[in-house]
Amino acid sequence: MFGAGDVRIETVPDATISEPTDALVRVTRACICGSDLWPYNQLEPSEHGQRMGHEFIGVVEAIGADVRTVKTGDLVVAPFAWSDGTCVFCHEGLHTSCLNGGWWARDGIDGGQGEAVRVPQADGTLVALPAGEDDALMPSLLTLSDVMGTGHHAARAARVGPGKTAAIVGDGAVGLCGVIAAKRLGAERIIILGRHPDRIALAKEFGATDVVAERGDEAVERVRELTAGFGAHSVLECVGYEQSMLTALGIARPGGAVGRVGLPQHETIPTTLTTFFDNITVSGGPAPARAYIEELLPDVLEGRIEPGRVFDSVTNLDGVPDGYRAMNEREAIKVMVEL
Amino acid sequence: MFGAGDVRIETVPDATISEPTDALVRVTRACICGSDLWPYNQLEPSEHGQRMGHEFIGVVEAIGADVRTVKTGDLVVAPFAWSDGTCVFCHEGLHTSCLNGGWWARDGIDGGQGEAVRVPQADGTLVALPAGEDDALMPSLLTLSDVMGTGHHAARAARVGPGKTAAIVGDGAVGLCGVIAAKRLGAERIIILGRHPDRIALAKEFGATDVVAERGDEAVERVRELTAGFGAHSVLECVGYEQSMLTALGIARPGGAVGRVGLPQHETIPTTLTTFFDNITVSGGPAPARAYIEELLPDVLEGRIEPGRVFDSVTNLDGVPDGYRAMNEREAIKVMVEL
Repeated sequence: MFGAGDVRIETVPDATISEPTDALVRVTRACICGSDLWPYNQLEPSEHGQRMGHEFIGVVEAIGADVRTVKTGDLVVAPFAWSDGTCVFCHEGLHTSCLNGGWWARDGIDGGQGEAVRVPQADGTLVALPAGEDDALMPSLLTLSDVMGTGHHAARAARVGPGKTAAIVGDGAVGLCGVIAAKRLGAERIIILGRHPDRIALAKEFGATDVVAERGDEAVERVRELTAGFGAHSVLECVGYEQSMLTALGIARPGGAVGRVGLPQHETIPTTLTTFFDNITVSGGPAPARAYIEELLPDVLEGRIEPGRVFDSVTNLDGVPDGYRAMNEREAIKVMVEL
Repeated sequence: MFGAGDVRIETVPDATISEPTDALVRVTRACICGSDLWPYNQLEPSEHGQRMGHEFIGVVEAIGADVRTVKTGDLVVAPFAWSDGTCVFCHEGLHTSCLNGGWWARDGIDGGQGEAVRVPQADGTLVALPAGEDDALMPSLLTLSDVMGTGHHAARAARVGPGKTAAIVGDGAVGLCGVIAAKRLGAERIIILGRHPDRIALAKEFGATDVVAERGDEAVERVRELTAGFGAHSVLECVGYEQSMLTALGIARPGGAVGRVGLPQHETIPTTLTTFFDNITVSGGPAPARAYIEELLPDVLEGRIEPGRVFDSVTNLDGVPDGYRAMNEREAIKVMVEL
């Protein structure tokens, strides 16, 4: 990406193993993330551009001398942050804070929207999948790299549990996975805030019980009407705007929690004294997707959840620039890239 | 209180039973709260003044026809919010959000800094104490009305647990009770941020293992030095200023939690993107002190915790105005009023 709206497919030097803990992965599936749309709208123009992509599945082509948990030929999924799997934070399940980890497409690390990736800390990062390269489950498996783990993280941070009411702010791919996660964790009632008919239809299939199409104060009022005036126990903030966080806080029940996973476009949390007096918890951040793969994988493999349905568009590498455009114009919920 | 700095002892009409759910309580012990110092410094002058006090122990003098759990002659403690004990929020342990509850010294309700109080919702509000009126445990029992419950709430909101490092921002009475709570909940390391020698000495007796006298960025740096660069798992924010919350967020470990109980003097939480990327949780609010009395009372009765030691000054009703002055000038940590 060379600037806002300027996505190009460029030939770069081949990815290679450079550390004994590396793996070389040939990418077979990648995708475009809602968070990729922030730079797509805001990135300053640059001559060298920035690699993109942090969600991929691929085949291990080579491994460094120290790699033990994956081998050449394995089909693997990579979470959206790479991590060593051994540091104190990885042991605590917070792989996004790994002491020896980092982010794709930054600081000389390859991006997932490309043909091949050098994967640092391969043992800690990659998870081998018991599936073939063209398995029908591929879209759902790909969501484990980010969007399903992120929806799950929002639900966990919002303390979704059996019998509770969950509200999801945002009907993008993360919000839709938030619906799946809320249902999976036992929420009795699931309110989605959104207004795109195709997304709302999918949200209902995923388990949403109520839809609030209003925005801002009207949305807050409507959710309160639906919840005897109290608000939702668990609110999943899946957008990142100051306004969406205000809505999320406004619909939280006293004693409830807001789990925020939308990349904040505003530094401070727009709380009010009500947030304090109602004992509302604000939690969340980037999902430790790696931590959740083991938990979510069986449900994907056995078909109990189908997060891959958030992909409503498939393209190839050359189609990536148009995929950004389509997602940015809300023509597509989420675009999968087949390589 | 007739305005900032203007506290007067006035004769008011006798408290009486007006609802069948009321109890009439003759106050035997009350106290001045750190939160009373906000109006003491900021209250606009008024002709009628505002009643004060929300922490008291007393003897039940009369009960309404519907009161079942306390009887005339009982020594009782009142939490700093009154509540019915039966609504959905009380059942959830969030008595400060009681649908039929409220606050002392507001909206025609008596204040605790007085000779007698009409207690609404007596069954839900009051807890009978197995102690005599002049029991040596009286100071510690009195802390169950607010300050010990508030320190405990900060620790719970900050998710203190065995083996964790807790940091307490603020060495006032709440912060000191936060130290007690952190130790009681199993924190391995307890860092107190403060610089008043008498308070720090007490904090150490309560279980603080480290003291950070620095403030602002220097305090953040010092706590990070003490914690291998990571910060504390659990941070108890016991002040309420924007700066103290900034410090609290700055010393929180990735994946950690800030439990805030200091009445916020600023609407928004001064988070940064680091708060998000580090997955830091912000929780807390007014403590449901009523919910904690049963849990904390045995530890007080059996001497395992001595929160009453935060009272370093005792006065009578006529001494209340000077008690405000003494606390405001940091001459006293917390003032107990004997009636």
